[in-house]
Amino acid sequence: MFYHDKELQYKVRVTKPNPVFARMLQQAIGGIEGEIRVCLQYMFQAWGQRGPVKYRDMLLETGTEEMAHIEMLATAVALNLEGAPMSLKEEMSKDKMIGAVMGGMDPRHVLSSGLAAMAVDANGVPFNGSWVVGSGNIAADMYANVMAESTGRVLATRLWEATDDPGMKDMLAFLIARDTMHQNQWLAVLEELGGLDCHPIPNSFPQSQEVKDFNYAFVTTNIRGDGTPLGRWTEGPSMDGKGEFHIRRAEPLGGEPKLAAPDPRGHAQTEQMTSGGLVAKAKHKLGLG
Amino acid sequence: MFYHDKELQYKVRVTKPNPVFARMLQQAIGGIEGEIRVCLQYMFQAWGQRGPVKYRDMLLETGTEEMAHIEMLATAVALNLEGAPMSLKEEMSKDKMIGAVMGGMDPRHVLSSGLAAMAVDANGVPFNGSWVVGSGNIAADMYANVMAESTGRVLATRLWEATDDPGMKDMLAFLIARDTMHQNQWLAVLEELGGLDCHPIPNSFPQSQEVKDFNYAFVTTNIRGDGTPLGRWTEGPSMDGKGEFHIRRAEPLGGEPKLAAPDPRGHAQTEQMTSGGLVAKAKHKLGLG
Amino acid sequence: MFYHDKELQYKVRVTKPNPVFARMLQQAIGGIEGEIRVCLQYMFQAWGQRGPVKYRDMLLETGTEEMAHIEMLATAVALNLEGAPMSLKEEMSKDKMIGAVMGGMDPRHVLSSGLAAMAVDANGVPFNGSWVVGSGNIAADMYANVMAESTGRVLATRLWEATDDPGMKDMLAFLIARDTMHQNQWLAVLEELGGLDCHPIPNSFPQSQEVKDFNYAFVTTNIRGDGTPLGRWTEGPSMDGKGEFHIRRAEPLGGEPKLAAPDPRGHAQTEQMTSGGLVAKAKHKLGLG
Amino acid sequence: MFYHDKELQYKVRVTKPNPVFARMLQQAIGGIEGEIRVCLQYMFQAWGQRGPVKYRDMLLETGTEEMAHIEMLATAVALNLEGAPMSLKEEMSKDKMIGAVMGGMDPRHVLSSGLAAMAVDANGVPFNGSWVVGSGNIAADMYANVMAESTGRVLATRLWEATDDPGMKDMLAFLIARDTMHQNQWLAVLEELGGLDCHPIPNSFPQSQEVKDFNYAFVTTNIRGDGTPLGRWTEGPSMDGKGEFHIRRAEPLGGEPKLAAPDPRGHAQTEQMTSGGLVAKAKHKLGLG
Amino acid sequence: MFYHDKELQYKVRVTKPNPVFARMLQQAIGGIEGEIRVCLQYMFQAWGQRGPVKYRDMLLETGTEEMAHIEMLATAVALNLEGAPMSLKEEMSKDKMIGAVMGGMDPRHVLSSGLAAMAVDANGVPFNGSWVVGSGNIAADMYANVMAESTGRVLATRLWEATDDPGMKDMLAFLIARDTMHQNQWLAVLEELGGLDCHPIPNSFPQSQEVKDFNYAFVTTNIRGDGTPLGRWTEGPSMDGKGEFHIRRAEPLGGEPKLAAPDPRGHAQTEQMTSGGLVAKAKHKLGLG
Amino acid sequence: MFYHDKELQYKVRVTKPNPVFARMLQQAIGGIEGEIRVCLQYMFQAWGQRGPVKYRDMLLETGTEEMAHIEMLATAVALNLEGAPMSLKEEMSKDKMIGAVMGGMDPRHVLSSGLAAMAVDANGVPFNGSWVVGSGNIAADMYANVMAESTGRVLATRLWEATDDPGMKDMLAFLIARDTMHQNQWLAVLEELGGLDCHPIPNSFPQSQEVKDFNYAFVTTNIRGDGTPLGRWTEGPSMDGKGEFHIRRAEPLGGEPKLAAPDPRGHAQTEQMTSGGLVAKAKHKLGLG
Repeated sequence: MFYHDKELQYKVRVTKPNPVFARMLQQAIGGIEGEIRVCLQYMFQAWGQRGPVKYRDMLLETGTEEMAHIEMLATAVALNLEGAPMSLKEEMSKDKMIGAVMGGMDPRHVLSSGLAAMAVDANGVPFNGSWVVGSGNIAADMYANVMAESTGRVLATRLWEATDDPGMKDMLAFLIARDTMHQNQWLAVLEELGGLDCHPIPNSFPQSQEVKDFNYAFVTTNIRGDGTPLGRWTEGPSMDGKGEFHIRRAEPLGGEPKLAAPDPRGHAQTEQMTSGGLVAKAKHKLGLG
Repeated sequence: MFYHDKELQYKVRVTKPNPVFARMLQQAIGGIEGEIRVCLQYMFQAWGQRGPVKYRDMLLETGTEEMAHIEMLATAVALNLEGAPMSLKEEMSKDKMIGAVMGGMDPRHVLSSGLAAMAVDANGVPFNGSWVVGSGNIAADMYANVMAESTGRVLATRLWEATDDPGMKDMLAFLIARDTMHQNQWLAVLEELGGLDCHPIPNSFPQSQEVKDFNYAFVTTNIRGDGTPLGRWTEGPSMDGKGEFHIRRAEPLGGEPKLAAPDPRGHAQTEQMTSGGLVAKAKHKLGLG
Repeated sequence: MFYHDKELQYKVRVTKPNPVFARMLQQAIGGIEGEIRVCLQYMFQAWGQRGPVKYRDMLLETGTEEMAHIEMLATAVALNLEGAPMSLKEEMSKDKMIGAVMGGMDPRHVLSSGLAAMAVDANGVPFNGSWVVGSGNIAADMYANVMAESTGRVLATRLWEATDDPGMKDMLAFLIARDTMHQNQWLAVLEELGGLDCHPIPNSFPQSQEVKDFNYAFVTTNIRGDGTPLGRWTEGPSMDGKGEFHIRRAEPLGGEPKLAAPDPRGHAQTEQMTSGGLVAKAKHKLGLG
Repeated sequence: MFYHDKELQYKVRVTKPNPVFARMLQQAIGGIEGEIRVCLQYMFQAWGQRGPVKYRDMLLETGTEEMAHIEMLATAVALNLEGAPMSLKEEMSKDKMIGAVMGGMDPRHVLSSGLAAMAVDANGVPFNGSWVVGSGNIAADMYANVMAESTGRVLATRLWEATDDPGMKDMLAFLIARDTMHQNQWLAVLEELGGLDCHPIPNSFPQSQEVKDFNYAFVTTNIRGDGTPLGRWTEGPSMDGKGEFHIRRAEPLGGEPKLAAPDPRGHAQTEQMTSGGLVAKAKHKLGLG
Repeated sequence: MFYHDKELQYKVRVTKPNPVFARMLQQAIGGIEGEIRVCLQYMFQAWGQRGPVKYRDMLLETGTEEMAHIEMLATAVALNLEGAPMSLKEEMSKDKMIGAVMGGMDPRHVLSSGLAAMAVDANGVPFNGSWVVGSGNIAADMYANVMAESTGRVLATRLWEATDDPGMKDMLAFLIARDTMHQNQWLAVLEELGGLDCHPIPNSFPQSQEVKDFNYAFVTTNIRGDGTPLGRWTEGPSMDGKGEFHIRRAEPLGGEPKLAAPDPRGHAQTEQMTSGGLVAKAKHKLGLG
Repeated sequence: MFYHDKELQYKVRVTKPNPVFARMLQQAIGGIEGEIRVCLQYMFQAWGQRGPVKYRDMLLETGTEEMAHIEMLATAVALNLEGAPMSLKEEMSKDKMIGAVMGGMDPRHVLSSGLAAMAVDANGVPFNGSWVVGSGNIAADMYANVMAESTGRVLATRLWEATDDPGMKDMLAFLIARDTMHQNQWLAVLEELGGLDCHPIPNSFPQSQEVKDFNYAFVTTNIRGDGTPLGRWTEGPSMDGKGEFHIRRAEPLGGEPKLAAPDPRGHAQTEQMTSGGLVAKAKHKLGLG
């Protein structure tokens, strides 16, 4: 269960409110790279964790921290919206530079939330629960987490570049630091789990059951024979140490698929069921005759 | 640009059609772990690739292969739907075991697609373009890809367990093998990019700008002093080699946030704007007086 | 900011795991009546609260409690999935009553989460951030909260009826009790804000600006003259004490709308731009001539 | 069933078309606070109404009226789009104030609808059927309706503030008046249903089944002992007259949850199934050794 | 504006309620082929109609009728849910045939709506406003309408096959008849607009601006030279009478795309910006060395 | 299965990058009228095709071509984003015309993708798999395809109008040409299937089962007797040649629906179950007494 403190984890100051930056910050709240996603992702992984209890415990810790990050960002959005233009008339009467502000804002910051954050991304697209990944396989989940913290840190550095408000830069510098830690944290779990020996994930499936010619082959679909891009993935031992990389040209091994005729109760067109009749058809044409 | 062959990449046979398994296969087509996602993800990463061209080339190769996997799975769905019950009456008149079939099917396989695959997951939730991750940072993208192939392979092994149809098991054994390769392939790119030196991603942001006390600290939010879960992530050098892990208790450094009063044109309640008047209020109550 | 305790707020026991009930419980997690919604709704209302600070403080309290409810329900889902069937073969070989189980389960509980809860509703539809209402008007928000706790309590009582597992009934009896409190809590704020005097919400908009003949009129659209349903809403003083209810027949006061011709650059059909030519047209018909 | 009149319920005039305002108006059409939502919500509540028939009848009346409001707003959008810029070139050649217009418009008003309204909100996010609440419990539904009309009226007053076009202000003044009535109308039903005696909703669930210590307790999760916000909700009789408010500190009564080991067929990592082996593992590390 | 009659357009009787059929009927309410879509589609097309007013008038007529169809189907759902099982316990105690019912129902019909229809499809996926097509080009819109009525009629005939309840068959026979009319109705408009001369839609774009070698060429992407499927589309005059069909092999005319290096402020990996350094890299590997 | 060529199908050049146009182009990638939709639509129709194999073959051809169009457009987006502003500071310091750019861009082009295309529409709303129509009835599907290519071509001509970049105009002129062909192609299939004889779709349902008085009747819901819009659809032979158009006034034939009382376990309000008691109720009012 959970407790709260009315104070923030780190300071959130805005020197010069900017409603366009408020919109951008929404990406870090309700976007796929955002904090609602990681908060719920770590929580759901914790609540469904089967296996060593220490991972459940650790996921709860960091999931709880992420809730504080949503709070910081939501506060930053509200502060950036202080004094935002609320009418088009007002907008037009200001100087022309400001004239672009309402165009760049999220209009729902005026219309729907009354100058506060919402559970949406920078385009107003609502947070979506499908982004919360918890697979029941801890190695897969750790990669999901490294990925979330990597795209999240990329986002935070771009927000840092987009503003020159010192308070906002400071807050983002804190969040960027936390993303650094969290990338390392999930990588540390992966090391505990065996590092590259984790692979292929899941490692509990017997590789003897795989179709062998294909599990370490780089399949090239390039129609020109000489275009295959070479790299670490085309020769040498595989990263998981369990095979040898090689190249294989794409080729069809499966033949043409053949489906049965339509079930009459599915009401395809009659012509789909009696295809022989198709040629003679066409007496009542679409209009060319 | 792209070309096709009418034949499949690998054989798709169904001995005993099972419409409930058809529904399960939809997860591998239109689900977040599915093939439409990886196909479009690798394609969009290729099309937006800035930097070494060989990565663009390689992403195109594998994105193109994934399209063939959607095709295989869509064919498998159609074959599993051959002879599926199309009326509740029919359903009821069969033996009781079969009686459960229509309950376990996706009803839209009967109603919407006429016994064919759709661009949806196992619950009929449509594929969502937000799942297609291409961040412009190749290391972040490679983690997104390892994650996609890891959750994808977990899914494929679960589908393999769920069926005893030999044709389906064989097709899945092929797809599982491809996921093995693709996990290795993206890890190989990460090695080329410096392995753990990639971190913190993005590595082009100067770490000197981070709030330093926090970038290698495991923050514990556990309300009991003795509950911090210890592990690789709480001491020793960080995974990226750029810091030292340590533990830090969560504490509020940001103070209480203070927002300005509401803008009158946002039409908050009057009481929000004149909070002093709140105590004397309540003359026309909700009903208890 | 936030802290956690590894223990649950209230006990969660499952005597006889039932994966169909696990699916039903998802509605209380990721559904529109569920706990993720109220958790985020109270949080976002707190973070954007402008006006008396005590409301911000109170919203934080209850938002934090709701996170513990998500945790309880997620745990309940995982416990109800213990031992769930993971293959269709297995399903078929059990007795016929059990034969219906996999049909009634969420297949993604097997395929995607590995027998754990997800951020989705009882049909696997993902949680959607658009449900998180925070309008900046505290009275409107309190109604949103009463409504959330009312539909939430209705849901919880239905789940209580749907199961006879004593542990589940006990957990639901706890959640039902909390919904009772929370309904009362938001109503208490409404009383503090003036009870029915809150209305019309927002009360900061001058009613003198309304089109007066319509603000207390029940407009009847019933095509038959004698069918208007009478009730408290058709006569007597209005609930807000600021008008008198009366009935008014629906009638068109606005005339027929007239839009300009299409802008040529919008590429309507030529016939839309030169409507006179339409009659003579039709020389190359769709096929009837 | 339904009939129509080609004329509008109230006049819709636009003196100076403004495509940025057209975008804002979309929130009142396809947004969560908008008219499609209330139209369908009242209709679905009517169509599913079980119990006194007069409520069904009344819901049909107002649902039908709301369709006319969608029509008015859709007309207003089209009129505000007359003469809107359709090319970036044109945009650039006008004076700089106008230069911001296309940035503030919904580009789909040009690209997708040809200068007409769409079933989306102010950010182009499509209307979502999940917003249509009909619970089968009439008191819960009435709160859903009061809430919809409250957030709807807040939205309408903000749109009224955002424009100085007299025709638009007049149309909005009409819609604001209707929202006043509809708030009162749903409150009138609540009074008929017993006013605060409705609570806790549903009132048909025996409160004797609730976990009693918690149904009138304000649970405080504040980690500091002295921070609980006091108010009408912390002491005195509860709003429903069925209990006494009191404060209770959050505390864990549920112990730590324990889940079973993963089912092998769910293909967790091997390490999750044999957790003893984890310490000795890590021979093939992620790279730091 | 709109009016209503409390009676239904056509009779809706259910002899033997079937909650599984109730779920199926939801596809015709809130699915992409369903009645909410056509209702709103015709309405929005009417409200945005620019050009001959008779098309606006006609669209309003049929949009209004469709609202009555939603009503009929919503009533049919409620009637099919009368007496539906509301607990798993009850479900289990009935005979085994009935045992499958709750698995095949939409659980939200019990949990969320209290045995009534919702604005969702047969899988509980909410209605989505993006399906409402109104392009501003009347010919394109008429095809959208023919398509909606075609997939809608296919759906209705499948529902007709799925049930043997005489009341339901009768109601569906009415809806199927209306779909017949509406297909013809939209085709009639197309004939008025010039039949095949409408094409290419939009006909107001000067075809002289098209890249000419490609506007009547069937491009074959088949990698085998002899596999092009022949038909009406590979030779002879084009359907619009403005060109001659011919076959053209797919070939790349566009060269390889070249993107600039990443903008440093976008924080790609350093290696993407200095690609020469990549070979020497890899000193701190992912683990294989 | 599929192959690729690293070169593009047609040349994509951008003389003067414009990030606002980049956003507009997204509609043609991830919008409902866009290329992801047609690509997947033709593919899924092919993979589920039952009946004459030549249609399966042809759909594969064109589906494969559409993938190349996504590629072209994604490249165009990336090229239009070269040099786009990445900070608000920079934006402000440029001249005022440029000042509007960031307002009109998709901020996620900076924040999420690093100046590359995404699988979203012009408002950042993600591509949605529900748009992929494949009904199992080939005539319905061909109309879905004509409609997709018609709205797609309308979109492309509007994009052509919106830009004066010669490279972009040339690329769009190519895509417009392809849409011309594809409209013709699907119409050609319809002619092969019998032209207007296809109707009513599905033509395999016996029309003798329809409710006859309604299958060729234009139902007028206009409340005024003299307002029915006349046209090809109100008299003369029907377009399918199987009936005669006529007009019929809307009238209720179905009576008032009557639902049973609520099931007690669904926890409606008590008053819904004992409606007689409603009048005497109201002792504990909402506040007016």
